[in-house]
Amino acid sequence: MSRKYVFAFEEGDGKNKKLLGGKGAGLCEMTQIGLNVPPGFVITTEACLDYLESESGRLPDGLMDEIGEHMKAVEKATGRKFGDSDNPLLVSVRSGGALSMPGMMDTILNLGLNTQTLQGLIKQTGNERFGYDAYRRFIQLFGKVAMGIPDRPFDETLEAIKVKTGALSDLDLTTDDLKEISDLFLHVVEENAFRPFPEDPDEQLALAVKAVFNSWMGKRAVDYRREFNITPDLANGTAANVVAMVFGNMGNDSGTGVGFTRDPATGENHMFGEYLVNAQGEDVVAGIRTPKPIMDMAKEMPDLYRQLEDLRTKLEKHYREIQDFEFTIEKGVLYCLQTRNGKMNAAAMVRTSVEMEAEGILSKEEALLRIDPQYLEQLLYPGLDPNYDAEPLAQGLPASPGAASGKCIFDSDRAETEGRAGEKVILVREETKPEDIHGFFAAQGILTSRGGKTSHAAVVARGMGKPCVAGAEGIRVDTEHRQAQVGDKVIHEGDVITIDGATGNVYLGEIPTVEPEFSEQLHVLLGWADEVSRLGVRANADTPEDARRAREFGAVGIGLCRTERMFNDPQRLPIVVEMILAQDLEQRETFLNQLQEFQRSDFKGLFRAMAPHPVTIRLLDPPIHEFLPYEFELLGQLQDLKQLKTSVRYAQQLMNGVKQIDAAFQVTVLEGLAKMPIDLSELEPAAIDAAIRRKELMLQRARALREVNPMLGHRGVRLGITNPEIYTMQVRAILEAAAECVKEGIEVHPEIMVPQVSSEAELSCVKKHVMAAKEEVEAAYEVTLDFKFGTMIEVVRACVTADEMAEVAEFFSFGTNDLTQATFSFSREDAENKFLPYYHEIGIIQENPFEALDVKGVGPLMKMAVEAGRRVRPDLKVGICGEHGGHPGSIRFCDSIGLDYVSCSGPRVPIARLAAAHATMNEHSRDR
Amino acid sequence: MSRKYVFAFEEGDGKNKKLLGGKGAGLCEMTQIGLNVPPGFVITTEACLDYLESESGRLPDGLMDEIGEHMKAVEKATGRKFGDSDNPLLVSVRSGGALSMPGMMDTILNLGLNTQTLQGLIKQTGNERFGYDAYRRFIQLFGKVAMGIPDRPFDETLEAIKVKTGALSDLDLTTDDLKEISDLFLHVVEENAFRPFPEDPDEQLALAVKAVFNSWMGKRAVDYRREFNITPDLANGTAANVVAMVFGNMGNDSGTGVGFTRDPATGENHMFGEYLVNAQGEDVVAGIRTPKPIMDMAKEMPDLYRQLEDLRTKLEKHYREIQDFEFTIEKGVLYCLQTRNGKMNAAAMVRTSVEMEAEGILSKEEALLRIDPQYLEQLLYPGLDPNYDAEPLAQGLPASPGAASGKCIFDSDRAETEGRAGEKVILVREETKPEDIHGFFAAQGILTSRGGKTSHAAVVARGMGKPCVAGAEGIRVDTEHRQAQVGDKVIHEGDVITIDGATGNVYLGEIPTVEPEFSEQLHVLLGWADEVSRLGVRANADTPEDARRAREFGAVGIGLCRTERMFNDPQRLPIVVEMILAQDLEQRETFLNQLQEFQRSDFKGLFRAMAPHPVTIRLLDPPIHEFLPYEFELLGQLQDLKQLKTSVRYAQQLMNGVKQIDAAFQVTVLEGLAKMPIDLSELEPAAIDAAIRRKELMLQRARALREVNPMLGHRGVRLGITNPEIYTMQVRAILEAAAECVKEGIEVHPEIMVPQVSSEAELSCVKKHVMAAKEEVEAAYEVTLDFKFGTMIEVVRACVTADEMAEVAEFFSFGTNDLTQATFSFSREDAENKFLPYYHEIGIIQENPFEALDVKGVGPLMKMAVEAGRRVRPDLKVGICGEHGGHPGSIRFCDSIGLDYVSCSGPRVPIARLAAAHATMNEHSRDR
Repeated sequence: MSRKYVFAFEEGDGKNKKLLGGKGAGLCEMTQIGLNVPPGFVITTEACLDYLESESGRLPDGLMDEIGEHMKAVEKATGRKFGDSDNPLLVSVRSGGALSMPGMMDTILNLGLNTQTLQGLIKQTGNERFGYDAYRRFIQLFGKVAMGIPDRPFDETLEAIKVKTGALSDLDLTTDDLKEISDLFLHVVEENAFRPFPEDPDEQLALAVKAVFNSWMGKRAVDYRREFNITPDLANGTAANVVAMVFGNMGNDSGTGVGFTRDPATGENHMFGEYLVNAQGEDVVAGIRTPKPIMDMAKEMPDLYRQLEDLRTKLEKHYREIQDFEFTIEKGVLYCLQTRNGKMNAAAMVRTSVEMEAEGILSKEEALLRIDPQYLEQLLYPGLDPNYDAEPLAQGLPASPGAASGKCIFDSDRAETEGRAGEKVILVREETKPEDIHGFFAAQGILTSRGGKTSHAAVVARGMGKPCVAGAEGIRVDTEHRQAQVGDKVIHEGDVITIDGATGNVYLGEIPTVEPEFSEQLHVLLGWADEVSRLGVRANADTPEDARRAREFGAVGIGLCRTERMFNDPQRLPIVVEMILAQDLEQRETFLNQLQEFQRSDFKGLFRAMAPHPVTIRLLDPPIHEFLPYEFELLGQLQDLKQLKTSVRYAQQLMNGVKQIDAAFQVTVLEGLAKMPIDLSELEPAAIDAAIRRKELMLQRARALREVNPMLGHRGVRLGITNPEIYTMQVRAILEAAAECVKEGIEVHPEIMVPQVSSEAELSCVKKHVMAAKEEVEAAYEVTLDFKFGTMIEVVRACVTADEMAEVAEFFSFGTNDLTQATFSFSREDAENKFLPYYHEIGIIQENPFEALDVKGVGPLMKMAVEAGRRVRPDLKVGICGEHGGHPGSIRFCDSIGLDYVSCSGPRVPIARLAAAHATMNEHSRDR
Repeated sequence: MSRKYVFAFEEGDGKNKKLLGGKGAGLCEMTQIGLNVPPGFVITTEACLDYLESESGRLPDGLMDEIGEHMKAVEKATGRKFGDSDNPLLVSVRSGGALSMPGMMDTILNLGLNTQTLQGLIKQTGNERFGYDAYRRFIQLFGKVAMGIPDRPFDETLEAIKVKTGALSDLDLTTDDLKEISDLFLHVVEENAFRPFPEDPDEQLALAVKAVFNSWMGKRAVDYRREFNITPDLANGTAANVVAMVFGNMGNDSGTGVGFTRDPATGENHMFGEYLVNAQGEDVVAGIRTPKPIMDMAKEMPDLYRQLEDLRTKLEKHYREIQDFEFTIEKGVLYCLQTRNGKMNAAAMVRTSVEMEAEGILSKEEALLRIDPQYLEQLLYPGLDPNYDAEPLAQGLPASPGAASGKCIFDSDRAETEGRAGEKVILVREETKPEDIHGFFAAQGILTSRGGKTSHAAVVARGMGKPCVAGAEGIRVDTEHRQAQVGDKVIHEGDVITIDGATGNVYLGEIPTVEPEFSEQLHVLLGWADEVSRLGVRANADTPEDARRAREFGAVGIGLCRTERMFNDPQRLPIVVEMILAQDLEQRETFLNQLQEFQRSDFKGLFRAMAPHPVTIRLLDPPIHEFLPYEFELLGQLQDLKQLKTSVRYAQQLMNGVKQIDAAFQVTVLEGLAKMPIDLSELEPAAIDAAIRRKELMLQRARALREVNPMLGHRGVRLGITNPEIYTMQVRAILEAAAECVKEGIEVHPEIMVPQVSSEAELSCVKKHVMAAKEEVEAAYEVTLDFKFGTMIEVVRACVTADEMAEVAEFFSFGTNDLTQATFSFSREDAENKFLPYYHEIGIIQENPFEALDVKGVGPLMKMAVEAGRRVRPDLKVGICGEHGGHPGSIRFCDSIGLDYVSCSGPRVPIARLAAAHATMNEHSRDR
């Protein structure tokens, strides 16, 4: 028994896209829920595969008979007859696989036209020009798709007629011209195909079905499937949909249009769309006439408008989603030709979710699940005005979201000056350093030509919520001459540029931006999310200001406060440098005491801003050489100073009358002087010597601290153990701040977190100092402190020995940035600049593991750590504070291994809240 | 019922060191195997603990009664009586815990002496002076140990008498002097202890037992236990051993001596030792008389010598180990006072093992097990003459074993020149680079002032088997002035120094070294080891010469050939540099083709040298910037060139008669010229410009290749994927070399190994290229190639995803150096220079994880990888080629997780063979 190859729209299974293709299944579903769809049927993907596999090149046995049966049904439903010269039935034959591959496969319209039926069509429409126009289009399209004739001879013929008649466009062609063209086109076919154009509609139909099937293996389609990795298990073969043609141009009771069930720009609950009376869909596309807003239809065709409203209700009720649909009205009858989920901006998604829940269309869960968490990003950062069209000047990595415009400024001091003067500024550097921090504060955004998404610039900018484009390698920054070069173009300091941290694009000039909205509906939606979520969402925040913003975004605690950020404040950095240069412990402690004052008040501010939520403070993490200038820089400064010294001596000689020095030499020396903005007469040689000695000391220190692989070097707990005075200072600052808060009646829950821990012994060593400080502070302030002591889990060994860690730590927080680096042995900065983009291009990685948690490699280590830790300490609190904490896919994984919370940058908190809710709901649906 | 606190030597369990202490158990064992031990008994550690725990400060109830019983037995056995004035029994009371703590606790001799028994002692020995001397010593020792009187008042009293009598040493004191001293000492006791010296021997005994027990908690003992981590489960409390005194000074039929059952210097099978007639043990220590070789006793006291020979046989038969024993002869009766396993050098250990097996004393297994594998090191590398006493000038890290002397030379070019001229040379550098490789070849050894045990210098030296001391930070190398400074001392180029790579010591001048011996017996012993071992032992070898040496050491294959070493050859490095500087792929391939020629012939040599054993070749691993000079260096060279250009111009002006230039300036410029060994008249300005351009190109390339963390950067498979032409070249060279060998009838088993792999996708990508090359080479040579394709497992993610890896790889080889770095997030070079020594000092780590495999952190990852890999591919071959492959403890772990082989540097192969045998035997003994 042969299988069934053809399904009428009334009988096909609307869920079986694999068999019927997406379009076919949709037509079946629409028909079966009672929408008025033009009659038709689907020829299955199985028929396609059987045809493609047969060596005969013939359609499967019996298929044409089955099609014939179904054509009869269509004839009956439409009251027209295929091949009839009086009231002919015309059909379209449309391709459509299981997955959408827009434009990749073929479709034929108006099939059934021939010299006879053409007259019937003219009679039906009362429009001879339309008839001939349709006819010549059909000949060309059929000739191309079903008979393999290229467009060129058709186009040349058409062009020749236009030249002859003086027609400027197709619209200028008369009915007679079109008649002539139709005749000529029939000749083109005959000449190129060595056979006449098929007059027999049944032959047309058979050829069209074959052509549609063949287009599955067309080059465009094959390339597309490879590009988007569409494998046979996802989609195999195309269906062919045969649909009765309906015409919107059969008079003033006909028309065509597109509609949205709600306004896709705002989400407002009213129909939105456009229509044309007495027109075909292609008229809209061709731009011949301007369509009217759909609201006008209420007055113009009130009866039809009611039908449309009815359609809108049916669609939303059935699909439970905003629909984007196409319709045609043929002689007062409304046909729905297509419908699909409507694309909307994030604001509209949020509004419709909240309102459809209120209307009882969606449950809260469904209202949450229909929004991709990542999609909220556009609500949380300013973006470029989407209506503004501009060509980017250069592209870098999208390192911190948001968009900003301002004057290019090439150093942080000047950025600060300009910023204070009220100028909008973009800080442009080759790469940034901690000493640039005041430039960050002053700037609207940051642009660098080197470094990846964890470069200093990227991390600091994300922390501050400022836009950043990093590693725009096409830009050559020339700080000395205060300019940058992109290809031949030179950007001078002060020129205005715009950066888009969401795309990495850099533009010349100012481009308008749109500000983010945090609507009431978003609050409502995220409130529902919080009710559902198992995971808590905290924020990474380094300052009281960050903390306040994070609360507004809905964070229920701080998951990571990077204390070193406080070191970088311009007021403090000099003290930090002195601390590093200190010759002995006593000297060092003097400077540490000064820092302790600062840190205590910072922490107090943080506790206040976040009370009564917990605040996790990480002790110093980076290697201390990061607080010193680069060796290269110091070397340069030292050389400058030495040259200055020589030049001063030389200048004095000149002033003393030694005149006969080689002129070229004079120039060289004076040029050297000119670079330095110093009045020579003010220079004390002794001062220069002192400056030289100091630079030499810094250089010596920088060299002693130099490391081959700083990421794996003397940092974090290793530094805390070899130099316990630093951690002791920080711990005291934390506990004293907490004690002062307690005295003021503020509820505080500090969590002291140690970075880079690789063994229980390291952690215990730090804990001893912490407990000693606790006793001292409690005694001094006469309070009892309630705090937790825990560890980052960012070293592989900490995962492997998590049971031992949990003996000492009351909480774990995964630092998945470093953990990913260690698991892959990839240095992120090097990888993102050197080989990761290529890895992605050739498919060695699917996603950047620094953005999407590597569930296969890093994931098992995390799982191992959670399980081992909880075996030893069942109430172990476990969170994540790496950047993955704000990535929806990664949040799903964190939920699945039982973490207690995720922590991310402030503006990502809403995204994480929604993602956390999704994770819980998806888990429940898996459980069911 | 109270427990039994006292055991006679005849009844105590010789195995129960915990209860009886090591010394007590030994005395029991000796007694029970029939050796003539002076009668005595052990008071248990339990008695000690009960005493220490009691708050009364009294000995446990009944203890003194039990002791009294046993004293009676001793009196009976000796025929003497405790406290008797005629024939008194004197005893020693000796401490002794379960573990040896030499000198940390107290012992009292000659207990029982008082004014009465002293006369008996004099009668027994016939030596009044001896009697009084023993008496005054007893008073002081007992006073100090049992009564808490410091040495000072005793010493002052003794000194006063010596001044009075004019005695220069104790030996000059007469019997009368000693009588006077004894009297005065009794006064000292009475004055300091506020009681008379106890005359009652029973009271003496009780006080002595208490004193011995108390010494367990003495400061010295407590410190010692903490230092060596002796916890209560290992040793808790001390026993007190009460032993009858025997005297070797009772006439010419008495004597004392020490013996070895075999010669500890050579292992020869004859008794070895020294003795004195009519003397006490302390006479030997005091150096009063020179002892005679024990062979003399055969003539002098033939009967006693036979008894000694008998003792020797009994000892070896019972202990099945060379014994180091002490004896005393009292009136013709031989007493054995102590015996323990003899300490021997490695050569003697090997000889005795082989001979004792032949004699039937030991099984082969026992013969193998008694030798610590690490101990063989002294047989495999030259070492400093142990008889030569010298003070080290400085100390660095022991980076590659062996010792060498030679002239200090500060750069590799000069080292090569001197080396060719037949001079012995030590290359001294701040740190070394690949371009120093010819200096390594020329030098006897390498000394650096920077870098750890994986610095370039250390790794290359170990690979070549040359001694190296690295990171001797006390030495300031000043290449410019061709000298080095250590404190105030200046070492000039050409001064002779000696380095000891086993200790890290550096000496001024030449110190004699002793060459290693690879004796016939060692061959026999290692043959036995190979019969036993489950693990194979391969060598890491980069050249045919290395491979030949490795075979001599018994390697059964090459586990790691580092192809980049071949790049560093002075002939090739320029080609490598050109390859890196190439502007396009075509240019690059020209240079790669040249390299391929070299590599093919290298590999052929290697295959030949190792046939028919397998040879594992690792494709290029380091980042390519390692083959370029440092940026700093290039910058300096560029500055020099620019200065040169200026100077030439200036010099020409001088020659052209511009005379009146500031004299100081002339000096500056001419000094600049003087530093460059160039004849100015030969300089073409155009040549300088060309050199400048080239340096600029190199600098630009070096900057583009610069990485933040090179260890985690663009290297290994990542480089192989982004630049497939490099790996393709190497793979072709390997396969062509193999094909040529096959044609010549040589059996070859190449194993192509990919480094730094983190995902199956990377490995598959390389495999495609390998299989393509295979087809080409097989076709071109008309042979079938038999080789394996596999991967290093040195990235954590490779361990976690080992199942996927094993789908593609036919073998795994653990690179535990990098794996350890990634697991700890420690950069070895930084860690060993910056914080690991301190971690070790304060006990955060017990062993350097880069020397001893970290079984707790790295171990589980390895185990996981082996298990997952073998699940997928049961015949997966797994080895280790990190440095741990030559470390005995790590080899034991490798055996336990089922590895197939270990691979280590050539000279460590014998150590690894023995360690592998130990591992198998220990595993079997665990199984039993």
